Amino acid sequence: MNCSVAQTLEVIGEWWTPLIIRDLMFGVSRFDDFQSRLGISRNVLTERLARLEEQGIVTREAYQDNPPRYDYRLTEKGADLWRVMEMMRQWGDRWAAPEGSPVELVHRTCGNIAHAELICSECGEALRQREITVAEGPGAGTTSALPEWLRERRSS
Amino acid sequence: MNCSVAQTLEVIGEWWTPLIIRDLMFGVSRFDDFQSRLGISRNVLTERLARLEEQGIVTREAYQDNPPRYDYRLTEKGADLWRVMEMMRQWGDRWAAPEGSPVELVHRTCGNIAHAELICSECGEALRQREITVAEGPGAGTTSALPEWLRERRSS
Repeated sequence: MNCSVAQTLEVIGEWWTPLIIRDLMFGVSRFDDFQSRLGISRNVLTERLARLEEQGIVTREAYQDNPPRYDYRLTEKGADLWRVMEMMRQWGDRWAAPEGSPVELVHRTCGNIAHAELICSECGEALRQREITVAEGPGAGTTSALPEWLRERRSS
Repeated sequence: MNCSVAQTLEVIGEWWTPLIIRDLMFGVSRFDDFQSRLGISRNVLTERLARLEEQGIVTREAYQDNPPRYDYRLTEKGADLWRVMEMMRQWGDRWAAPEGSPVELVHRTCGNIAHAELICSECGEALRQREITVAEGPGAGTTSALPEWLRERRSS
């Protein structure tokens, strides 16, 4: 299926994986730390980390040889998932955090507790859902994910 | 676990569910259309739609009584996932769309093909990952998802 959402799901669509990525963003790097923080089985964690490495999302570096132990870090591609994670954080805050935000974002540049707001890359205005639509892009190919009624092509 | 990312995963963490939500955002509303577009089994689709209804993400309205058939629509809570979906689209475009973007965003207000950019809600500057950090929020409680080294509390 020719869809970038589906492609992203290939990476974050497995249960636990977004939480492993969250922890990597927090600076957690060691197997035992992921394991105790998430409370998942070692088998599942091993499998998820191997898959993330295969997908180019994490790299690992040995910090001990015998037995071999690794630090896991996000690659540039992995770190670039922060926008997805921030939007997941905001949605959960809005709809499933009756006690208030468990984790807040701090913008170090201005020093404030903040959240990300979405603006249009072209006109700079705040983006509102009712003011956006979608169109086929140059990579739509012959298996566009768009339904017929949205297939007006806007660029080539 | 006291984490808004985990809460959002409760909704979009099942395979297929983000693609069902994507299709709902495209205006797809009928069981058979989801089924043929996604190519998933009717059982899985039934289960996913029931779960989304239970979670308050979709509502359904009968358009035919005998046999009963429904139109599925996003609720406000469900539609509010568009920011997560847009960030998934962008990431997939950047890292897994060698032929170019399959689907583009059109900002109807300005008429341009656009993408969402993230700015700080407080100072209005573009948000860059290296300039943000996290802190415990008022809802952190006693089971904060943050590792020790990030537990400086910034608000109450």
